[in-house]
Amino acid sequence: MMHQAGISLGVPMRFLAADEQDSAVQVAPDWEMGSAMSDVDLRRFSASCDVVTFEHEVVDLEGLEDLERSGVVFRPSSRSLRVVADKLGMRRAVGWSGLPVPPWRQVKTREELDEALSEWPRAVLKPARGGYDGRGVFVVDDPSEGRELGERLLGRRVPLLVEPVIDFDSEVAVIVARRLGGEMVVYDPVTTLQVDGQCRQVTAPTGLPEAVVEDIKSIGARVADSIEVVGLVAVEIFVVGADLLVNELAVRPHNSGHHSIEGCVTSQFENHIRAVLDLPLGVPDLVAPGVAMVNVIGTGVEPRTRLSDALAQDSGARIHLYGKEPRIDRKIGHVTVCASEVEEAVGRAWAVVEALGGQVPEEVER
Amino acid sequence: MMHQAGISLGVPMRFLAADEQDSAVQVAPDWEMGSAMSDVDLRRFSASCDVVTFEHEVVDLEGLEDLERSGVVFRPSSRSLRVVADKLGMRRAVGWSGLPVPPWRQVKTREELDEALSEWPRAVLKPARGGYDGRGVFVVDDPSEGRELGERLLGRRVPLLVEPVIDFDSEVAVIVARRLGGEMVVYDPVTTLQVDGQCRQVTAPTGLPEAVVEDIKSIGARVADSIEVVGLVAVEIFVVGADLLVNELAVRPHNSGHHSIEGCVTSQFENHIRAVLDLPLGVPDLVAPGVAMVNVIGTGVEPRTRLSDALAQDSGARIHLYGKEPRIDRKIGHVTVCASEVEEAVGRAWAVVEALGGQVPEEVER
Repeated sequence: MMHQAGISLGVPMRFLAADEQDSAVQVAPDWEMGSAMSDVDLRRFSASCDVVTFEHEVVDLEGLEDLERSGVVFRPSSRSLRVVADKLGMRRAVGWSGLPVPPWRQVKTREELDEALSEWPRAVLKPARGGYDGRGVFVVDDPSEGRELGERLLGRRVPLLVEPVIDFDSEVAVIVARRLGGEMVVYDPVTTLQVDGQCRQVTAPTGLPEAVVEDIKSIGARVADSIEVVGLVAVEIFVVGADLLVNELAVRPHNSGHHSIEGCVTSQFENHIRAVLDLPLGVPDLVAPGVAMVNVIGTGVEPRTRLSDALAQDSGARIHLYGKEPRIDRKIGHVTVCASEVEEAVGRAWAVVEALGGQVPEEVER
Repeated sequence: MMHQAGISLGVPMRFLAADEQDSAVQVAPDWEMGSAMSDVDLRRFSASCDVVTFEHEVVDLEGLEDLERSGVVFRPSSRSLRVVADKLGMRRAVGWSGLPVPPWRQVKTREELDEALSEWPRAVLKPARGGYDGRGVFVVDDPSEGRELGERLLGRRVPLLVEPVIDFDSEVAVIVARRLGGEMVVYDPVTTLQVDGQCRQVTAPTGLPEAVVEDIKSIGARVADSIEVVGLVAVEIFVVGADLLVNELAVRPHNSGHHSIEGCVTSQFENHIRAVLDLPLGVPDLVAPGVAMVNVIGTGVEPRTRLSDALAQDSGARIHLYGKEPRIDRKIGHVTVCASEVEEAVGRAWAVVEALGGQVPEEVER
């Protein structure tokens, strides 16, 4: 999707691909094999680029810092990446900037684990590093389950973050694009629906009162400034009564912004490219009164074989397939519908996902 | 632009490229060098494709027919291509289907040339074959100029079409996507502005009375059916008082449909791919009350070097650069603006084209 945006602007892009099956390898001419966790691969790759950016945060941070010192331009910088790569650091950084976060404890011992679980019997356990896209987040329903899992996670020798399960009214996200000098555009917040920690549905606008929407956008802008991101930051927020609690950050094009390809004047991918090249940013406004994006999550069915049925299901839906093997629980595409209201867009998008053979969880209200 | 649409649908595409500098070579991983005028190249290329389609009509028609007989699937077929590849055949075919065309004569001798020029002192001379995108269309302002040029063109041993310069009220175009079985979608007609035979500006909607718009769409559908196109047909029409005269046809994604990328629910490129793969077609509706597309025509200035200025000029405009050398008079990109009315969209799009260093002809009313 980044490549599609780069084509329009005439920006030549080279991709570092971990695998011959990567989506980028299938659609772009200029790539090389390597891992963002490898110092050597990053050094070789960076040498051919004016600016290096990211579509995930699983990178060798120490290697990045070395390369930055030798003159390689990473946007976002290793400093911004470091904040989001460590969930404990992220909680501290957000807290320091005066923004509310859920209650949390750092747990290093069995005793601290017991204390945390006795305070929060239903808890979320997160190793501070290594998670990505819902992986590395574990919900436990009672202390004995928490103790068993927590001890196993402590054994990994990665700091552990424990927090209560938040009984939120809704989960929202806001994406901010920020240039080097601090120029920003803030997208309209979206409502996200997560199932088993995985994003399933994104809708815009949120339908929240205008003052709350402005608060969410202002939180997004404050986070972007405080971590001095160059590129995008996606801020995931719990709405709990009148409170807004900052849950997670990502500094890259994010699933909660995929609706922007057709649903906004300028997509998150184009604004990401513009921001990291220090080009003026584009208007993020919604182009329809209701936009829904639903992920195609693998069931084993190859969605290409269902393309005709899915296109016949809805002649106005926009289908994106990533060319990935349709393994169970894997994100392999998404469907966006722009409509005159969110409810209509949601129903239509899920019907197309079903026609493509994607998962339709029970939690979904259609 | 076809590749960008193919990426979303997960359709693997291979390109036949005439040149290492071709846009497709710059952005797509799967291409081979060759010419669509070469029987040998077409045969080799076709062997690796399930369906072969076109982005221009400069092809070896006899070679295509041979390959079709051996089982290669061309969409559109050689039969549809033959109609548009020959301007005389096209005029006859459109006339036979009962649709009005401008007056015309086939000219084979100096005597016939003199007759035509005495009837129409201001005339358009078109060799029947070999033209593409405004090239191969010559306007003469008096008979002596016409005689000199006409004799030269007759020397090329290609049939010559002569017709009067039509004093039209406006030029419009309509794009139709048509599947194998005849299913069609018809885009809203657009108004085109041509300068020296080259398309400069496309706007939608046309602002013509609803009944005229319906007539234009119905002409598009009749042309698509009569030439049995599979893929797209763009029909260019002169509006002369109450008359609609069919001027030119193209059976491919067309410059008069570039606005559809952001301006319509489904772009012409996606509907072209859907049609040639016999997939259900997408809604062609406009997504904004006024849409303008303006071509970036080369002046020698590399538009990439002006990208920052152009993006700063208008944060809501959409810029497409084709990665082509900015030779004088060459189409090297386009700019689309969606707005609340056409006039606003036109003014904004031209301002961005100017910022990119593109030509701004005097004929343009901004």
